[in-house]
Amino acid sequence: MNAAANAAPRALRGRLDLCAINTATLGHRAPIATVIDQVARAGFGAIAPWRREIEGADVQAIARHIADAGLAVSGYCRSTYFPAATVEGARAAIEDNRRALRDAATLNAACFIMVVGSLPPGSRDLAGARAQVSDGIGALLEEARTLGVALALEPLHPMYAGDRSCLTTLAEALDICDALDPAGDGGIGVAVDCYHVWWDPALAASIARAGQGGRILAFHVCDWLVPTTDMLLDRGMMGDGVIDIAGMRAGVERAGFAGAVECEIFSAANWWRREAKDTLSVCAERFQSVC
Amino acid sequence: MNAAANAAPRALRGRLDLCAINTATLGHRAPIATVIDQVARAGFGAIAPWRREIEGADVQAIARHIADAGLAVSGYCRSTYFPAATVEGARAAIEDNRRALRDAATLNAACFIMVVGSLPPGSRDLAGARAQVSDGIGALLEEARTLGVALALEPLHPMYAGDRSCLTTLAEALDICDALDPAGDGGIGVAVDCYHVWWDPALAASIARAGQGGRILAFHVCDWLVPTTDMLLDRGMMGDGVIDIAGMRAGVERAGFAGAVECEIFSAANWWRREAKDTLSVCAERFQSVC
Repeated sequence: MNAAANAAPRALRGRLDLCAINTATLGHRAPIATVIDQVARAGFGAIAPWRREIEGADVQAIARHIADAGLAVSGYCRSTYFPAATVEGARAAIEDNRRALRDAATLNAACFIMVVGSLPPGSRDLAGARAQVSDGIGALLEEARTLGVALALEPLHPMYAGDRSCLTTLAEALDICDALDPAGDGGIGVAVDCYHVWWDPALAASIARAGQGGRILAFHVCDWLVPTTDMLLDRGMMGDGVIDIAGMRAGVERAGFAGAVECEIFSAANWWRREAKDTLSVCAERFQSVC
Repeated sequence: MNAAANAAPRALRGRLDLCAINTATLGHRAPIATVIDQVARAGFGAIAPWRREIEGADVQAIARHIADAGLAVSGYCRSTYFPAATVEGARAAIEDNRRALRDAATLNAACFIMVVGSLPPGSRDLAGARAQVSDGIGALLEEARTLGVALALEPLHPMYAGDRSCLTTLAEALDICDALDPAGDGGIGVAVDCYHVWWDPALAASIARAGQGGRILAFHVCDWLVPTTDMLLDRGMMGDGVIDIAGMRAGVERAGFAGAVECEIFSAANWWRREAKDTLSVCAERFQSVC
């Protein structure tokens, strides 16, 4: 049990240094250098960049820019999907992830976010996809430990089970962690994203279990809108939907999570159309009043 | 353990008498009398009507029409949502469901499908909604037994957890069954719908558990399309998506299910735009080739 267990949740008012912005929240419209400065200027303590902003660029320079701006890196998004129709495809995905892991280390990221993929085209073999995921993660674990970047398995909402993630619940993610790391040596854990797991009747039990294993590597917030008009790009700002975000944060912090609370909003029709500084301003306000 | 357990799945080729059509599959465009005749003429063995087609009409006459057409009633859709913002609202929902249960008995339905609802407007209290659901179902159980119409708790896909169903997994539905019917006297069980539960990593275990308790009251089929373009009205015809329907049917039949296999497709942009007889013809073909 982590030392922080059973403590009251941290106060976020006046503590944006405990809060992180995932760059997807701003819609990937500006160069990463601009986004780093915007996030830092708004007072946040951390940033979570995406590979599309990093790969092909000077990763060390970006890492320095982030550090010079006073930002930590709460996570690096995200893995290449593991399941593939061929052995070569599966192997290529692992190699791709290995390269990304090294960039995560260069960025000094708290974790590498694993969005695992699901059925290859034409397949209905969900069990097979799950086995490929577990094998792929297993193939990365030693390097993750060597590099000091933990693999954060992120179960996605079951509405993505057909294409984006056969990993749908924290329980299943924790089963993989336990299978690959039975001794609890670390280097592998979970990313708890409100949006993906808020509905789960086993949520409290899974969070407690994750905490006992010291497995909570990331905590992402946004909100579930009713109605939701797009399955991918209609996530809500914290407070605009039906998720009890404060309750969930209390749960993960009781379970020992002490990292940055990271806001990740995909919102093509709303937040991505606003000025970055306005979106960041609302994020800051909602972190302090809703989360 | 049911006597049918461990048997091979039934052959559906040439056995449309084992197959049912949920009237939603035809888009509720024609009067129920017309739909009954269409379904019977196409050779199916059962039908599952909706309350909108029944309430306010002569229920006994409809029941006679269905029986005279040689059709069984595989289920009656569906309950009024239980969670409400007020005590009066919750009570009214139960009374509404009580009336519907009586109609289900008149129709000689195999079960009354319980789609349970979720958060009342303005609420984020998912645990509270779940408690209201359990209480509401409990309030109906004795009458269900008296009438001889079992309550079939249908977990919906978690993408409906905000509004349509706080009941999202078979495990949770079975927990409610066990809590309300600890002695296994019956009158309560689950409806297993491919579309809602196919993604669940605990699916095989939950189906086996349901079978041991004799709790599988209904089995619904359709398919999950990739991509899915509408969260409510874009279900696919069996075979057009990624669900291993045959594998799931084998599972529920191994677990003892011996009722009609029911096709329920909400498809505003595709199947609801076709002639009913064409949709039924494709259903018949897919039941025999895919399911």
